[in-house]
Amino acid sequence: MKRIIFITGLLILFIACKQSAIIEGNSIKVSNINELNAAIKNSNAGDNIILANGVWRDVEINFYGNGTKENPITLMAEEKGKVTIEGASNLKIGGSYLEVNGLYFKNGHTPSKNVIQFKINNDTIANHCKVTQCVIEEFTQPDRDVSDHWVEFWGRHNELSHCYITGKSNFGPTIIVQLKGNQHIKTYHQIVNNHFGPRPRKGGPHGETMQIGDSGTSMTPAHVVVSNNLFERCNGEVEIISSKSNFNEFRNNVFFESEGSLVLRHGNYATIDGNIFIGNDNSKFIGGIRVINTGHWITNNYFYKLKGETFRAPLSVMNGIPKSPLNRYNQVTDAVVAYNSFIDCKSPWQFSVGSNVSQSDVLPPSEIRSARPIRTVVANNLLFNSEGDEYPIVNYDKVDGINFKNNITNSENKSEIKPKGLITKEVQVKQVSDGLCILTENYTDIFNGFDFETITTDIFGTERTSESNSVGAIVNPVKENAILVDKSKYGTDWFSTEKVKYEPKKIQVSSNAELVEGLNAANSGDILVVKSGSYTVDSSLKINKRITITSEDKNNKAELVFTSENTAFEMNPKGNLIIEDIILKGNKTQDAFATLDKNMTKAYNLWIKNSELSDFKSVLRVSKGSFADTVSVANSTIKNCVRGIMLNKETNDGGDYNCEFVNITNSTFENIQEVVLDFYRGGYDESTIGGHLTFQNNHVSNSGGNSDEAILIKNRGIVNVDFSNNTFKNNPVKLIAVLWGAKGQKPVNNTTINSGKIEVVQNLKLKLMY
Amino acid sequence: MKRIIFITGLLILFIACKQSAIIEGNSIKVSNINELNAAIKNSNAGDNIILANGVWRDVEINFYGNGTKENPITLMAEEKGKVTIEGASNLKIGGSYLEVNGLYFKNGHTPSKNVIQFKINNDTIANHCKVTQCVIEEFTQPDRDVSDHWVEFWGRHNELSHCYITGKSNFGPTIIVQLKGNQHIKTYHQIVNNHFGPRPRKGGPHGETMQIGDSGTSMTPAHVVVSNNLFERCNGEVEIISSKSNFNEFRNNVFFESEGSLVLRHGNYATIDGNIFIGNDNSKFIGGIRVINTGHWITNNYFYKLKGETFRAPLSVMNGIPKSPLNRYNQVTDAVVAYNSFIDCKSPWQFSVGSNVSQSDVLPPSEIRSARPIRTVVANNLLFNSEGDEYPIVNYDKVDGINFKNNITNSENKSEIKPKGLITKEVQVKQVSDGLCILTENYTDIFNGFDFETITTDIFGTERTSESNSVGAIVNPVKENAILVDKSKYGTDWFSTEKVKYEPKKIQVSSNAELVEGLNAANSGDILVVKSGSYTVDSSLKINKRITITSEDKNNKAELVFTSENTAFEMNPKGNLIIEDIILKGNKTQDAFATLDKNMTKAYNLWIKNSELSDFKSVLRVSKGSFADTVSVANSTIKNCVRGIMLNKETNDGGDYNCEFVNITNSTFENIQEVVLDFYRGGYDESTIGGHLTFQNNHVSNSGGNSDEAILIKNRGIVNVDFSNNTFKNNPVKLIAVLWGAKGQKPVNNTTINSGKIEVVQNLKLKLMY
Repeated sequence: MKRIIFITGLLILFIACKQSAIIEGNSIKVSNINELNAAIKNSNAGDNIILANGVWRDVEINFYGNGTKENPITLMAEEKGKVTIEGASNLKIGGSYLEVNGLYFKNGHTPSKNVIQFKINNDTIANHCKVTQCVIEEFTQPDRDVSDHWVEFWGRHNELSHCYITGKSNFGPTIIVQLKGNQHIKTYHQIVNNHFGPRPRKGGPHGETMQIGDSGTSMTPAHVVVSNNLFERCNGEVEIISSKSNFNEFRNNVFFESEGSLVLRHGNYATIDGNIFIGNDNSKFIGGIRVINTGHWITNNYFYKLKGETFRAPLSVMNGIPKSPLNRYNQVTDAVVAYNSFIDCKSPWQFSVGSNVSQSDVLPPSEIRSARPIRTVVANNLLFNSEGDEYPIVNYDKVDGINFKNNITNSENKSEIKPKGLITKEVQVKQVSDGLCILTENYTDIFNGFDFETITTDIFGTERTSESNSVGAIVNPVKENAILVDKSKYGTDWFSTEKVKYEPKKIQVSSNAELVEGLNAANSGDILVVKSGSYTVDSSLKINKRITITSEDKNNKAELVFTSENTAFEMNPKGNLIIEDIILKGNKTQDAFATLDKNMTKAYNLWIKNSELSDFKSVLRVSKGSFADTVSVANSTIKNCVRGIMLNKETNDGGDYNCEFVNITNSTFENIQEVVLDFYRGGYDESTIGGHLTFQNNHVSNSGGNSDEAILIKNRGIVNVDFSNNTFKNNPVKLIAVLWGAKGQKPVNNTTINSGKIEVVQNLKLKLMY
Repeated sequence: MKRIIFITGLLILFIACKQSAIIEGNSIKVSNINELNAAIKNSNAGDNIILANGVWRDVEINFYGNGTKENPITLMAEEKGKVTIEGASNLKIGGSYLEVNGLYFKNGHTPSKNVIQFKINNDTIANHCKVTQCVIEEFTQPDRDVSDHWVEFWGRHNELSHCYITGKSNFGPTIIVQLKGNQHIKTYHQIVNNHFGPRPRKGGPHGETMQIGDSGTSMTPAHVVVSNNLFERCNGEVEIISSKSNFNEFRNNVFFESEGSLVLRHGNYATIDGNIFIGNDNSKFIGGIRVINTGHWITNNYFYKLKGETFRAPLSVMNGIPKSPLNRYNQVTDAVVAYNSFIDCKSPWQFSVGSNVSQSDVLPPSEIRSARPIRTVVANNLLFNSEGDEYPIVNYDKVDGINFKNNITNSENKSEIKPKGLITKEVQVKQVSDGLCILTENYTDIFNGFDFETITTDIFGTERTSESNSVGAIVNPVKENAILVDKSKYGTDWFSTEKVKYEPKKIQVSSNAELVEGLNAANSGDILVVKSGSYTVDSSLKINKRITITSEDKNNKAELVFTSENTAFEMNPKGNLIIEDIILKGNKTQDAFATLDKNMTKAYNLWIKNSELSDFKSVLRVSKGSFADTVSVANSTIKNCVRGIMLNKETNDGGDYNCEFVNITNSTFENIQEVVLDFYRGGYDESTIGGHLTFQNNHVSNSGGNSDEAILIKNRGIVNVDFSNNTFKNNPVKLIAVLWGAKGQKPVNNTTINSGKIEVVQNLKLKLMY
């Protein structure tokens, strides 16, 4: 009876409030920026400003005003998808209870530092504002070196929801939350139900999909909620999300084949609950969670087919720097890792990652990560590997601060670390849907750690009770038809992220003119098939799509002879060129391949297979801002050139570089006057794991004579190098290459005859990036 | 009507709860530790364990169990004040809802690291436990160098209330809150209504009255509440309270003539509201609030007659170290200083304190405090100085990050910094009670900064409304008979902190025997008046109380001739010796004054006035753990000794030293073979402002010939030195003294004839303390 009276009282109050608040607002349709500005200026709570269908080009929208919780002011598209914001455009929001709905940013870039900014200026800041059902697609700066953010949060209680955001290839996190100033702390921002589509590799740092705060504001209580988002192939850098503030929550997100990790870089007391990390069978790039600092709770997460190592391990717990500077690495303390499932992952637990005591002669003392994780509980986790995983734990230092309790694995543990709290058991699992493996029955012997009673549910929201509980992320029973990823939860209700599959066509080429015309007419993906014979080309061929050029008769390869001084192939953004079974000849006045000098807004790719190149200046010449995902030479011969592949223009000390993967295999380099390859990365921060070079099974001879530094192959600062099974003969150099011992680089099975030597330097002296 | 139903519902629920919870516990009286242990072991919620009156000696009490909120288990004194815990004793508390009431710790010290500890071990931690109405009086370690804490908090929701705690003279904060581990964060500990009585100067760091966390746990949300406490002459070191964690609250405390500050050393977002800081007319030692780090709110505080400078300024806002290491100085950002009153303070606002760019050649870059405060608001404060204060702002760097708004002062501002937001006005104040000055009428032109609406009351709890508000800590009208300090709020309800004033008596001495007997019989404060004549003393005179030895006839001074090899005067803890108008002679085999070698648990003092000393080994010899508050020689002659005043045994590099004040004035030193004075402080941390030497108007001649380092006066590491108007003649040394230029030391008006020189070194090379 008492309870009924109580509830009735509340209900009456609630209804009274609700009724008094309903207002009928105006709908105002606007067709150009002037009308829009006027409508914004005159708007009141409850108004609905409608952008007419069409292209809104070069518009900088300042949306300000004060709505109310019940009656926001709305700025919306007449029809979602039919209102596009293009050109040099952006949107700033300032005031309270403003909502932006259904805008589509494409075909342009912001003229300021942000596409969408939750403040207009320091006096007009957004609070309780919302951007929803919007798309930002490849709205990227023309110059990769120009930094911007696509959504920049300021103020408090703002929301980004049900948006689709993809294709940022320039510097700067896609989403950033700013916390400078008391107006911008305790934010409780909601970043929910978005679909973060592919972000390409950037080459170096500053390619996060999301960053919350920075080291200078890492002491602030941010309270940002990031939940129910899909991160799909967010490959910008090693940090998909860089959490740099306190009390952030990451719940129920899906990280799908994204080459990076959710990184607790600065700040403390994050909650990472119920997230799904999906790798694939062979990528070592796809990470999980990287832990730094104090007090994080990592619970109910599901890690599937992750193979990443060290910084990219499924669970990577770092060593800290004792008394770390603000912008470096604090010790891990008081973390809880409980009730997670690691399914078909390889060596999922890696501790003291980043330990670098051995490098104390090249690093200052304030860089030595020697502080091991302490007061950390790892409990009630499930490790299941269908093929067995005998080394579930990798340790880079002693493991003396981790309390392992009641974890189970189905593999024998042959790791150096064999805690009693990791128990090998016969475990029965079943796959109930794509990627979703569950225990056939609950494993109920769990550890009740301090405050564990606050972990009340599993990954699907099923209650954990003293009667029904289990190790791992999932408690039985699982509802019927359970699926791991429900795509309907993420992104807009109107934009299709599925690309129509294109069936490439073959274009026959039997004359110079047909080559040029065919290239112009081709759709991305098409194949130019060149008849045998020699073709003179007197202009640059512009490559701005995916094009294959190949010979009709592989045994009688077509020969392209370039006579212009301009580069043979001009690599443009998104240019994707495959040269296969072709002979390319220059006249020593031009480069074989060169990027644009500017506006290399997106990455390009270059593959040379079974081909011959001769008589060029450079094989490849690039501009500073350019970036290739892959440059590959296979089964080919390159000779009589001034220099080879020159990926050496990104020379800042910020960890950036001009290409992610350089693969040179089974090829011959002959009479290259200067260097065969120059692949450069400046600056040092071990957490930016950059640059890959494979140089295997090649023959290099009579080259390097005019090399400035008497070196044949330059790979300074590149982190991942495979240098094996090559033959070097009669190259008049002192050094063939310098490898970086601390990164595990070593020459394997190379033959050198009358050439310089291959040197291994344990620790490169590099300028620190910060 | 609705409201009535609602409230009724709540009331019924409340009453129902209350009734169901009352339990009748047992009262168990215990007379010894075995009975106590048994009672604890058998205790249940609601039980009351009573310690019988008497002395409980050498007891280590583990009080454990689980009470409930309504029915705690209580451990109490039969009669408060009649149950004393003495000897090697301590108390540990573990469990929940335990209460300790009325214990009196005296005449002993803890055999462990704590007197009272809110945990028994890592498995038995206190939560919701309380210590109240207890006294800890001079329960200090025999050896000053042995560190302990008197109350050590662990767990959550524990309380220290209505206690009186005084007289800690060894290393270690009196109260410490430990935050290591998730069980010990978000504590909401209450430290309320206590009286922290005098804590003597310690000499160097680690003499805080309270420390909350440490740099290693400075990222934790501590939420400790320190309110309504009286800090009376807490002089242990420059930090009375060292807040080293987040979200702590300091409300309505009184800091009375305490030589230090409330320091926000590490951690962020402290609230300092409604506190009272009372100085006195001339002390530069008594500080206010020192600000480091981010997001602190300093509101409604009342600063009265404070004269401290730099680190001890009423409001000292420091420069930070860019990207500071965890244990050093973060930049001040986002602080708010609003609605405070500074009454009769001198230069109360000091900014960029600690700026030390000039010392970059002796300090590592990671020590340079160059990061000025930013995004900081100083608004609605009142500065009133009855004699005028033309330099209200002192700046040690540019002031470009402070937003001054609507502050008023009654003085012309001639400071280098003249912000528009500091307005000179004719201001009328009246004194309504001791130390309490209020504006005669509200000054209502206030600045409404971000979130200022959360400052809802003034220092007395009077509401601040849009109708009634004022700059300064106090809003009119003030209730009648308002007083600044209500002593009834602080400490116990049973222990008298007022000392009975003793009227010293004169004891006439006319023989050796009378001297020894008189000294033994004297009460502290008494005066031995010695008849003219010569007295042979063949033993040490033990000084463990305040004793004056003087001559009956100042024109015909008594002469004490010491013949034993033992020290003439043995300085014991609390020894306080005034030698006035006396001639002391040794036989060159003994020291004139020496401390005990061990167990110098409390400070001593030594004054020599109008006297003559000759033919001793050392004038003063001390042990490492000893500490003198003052050593003073005035208008005296010291001659024919091996060495002079030797305060040089505390040689650690932790910033410690053997004496706070050395004052040597108007005296003559003649034929001292080695050094005249050796006063040492090792280690460097500018925040520990230690050691004072005044060496004025002295004559030194024919001394220093056997000095190891050919130096006459050693004062290495001593921070405050006045070296003026002395004459040095015929001293065969290279150096008279080395002064420290960076600390403003310089020789003034000294005369040197056939002596060494006085050197000034700008920056001493010192070992950093951390």
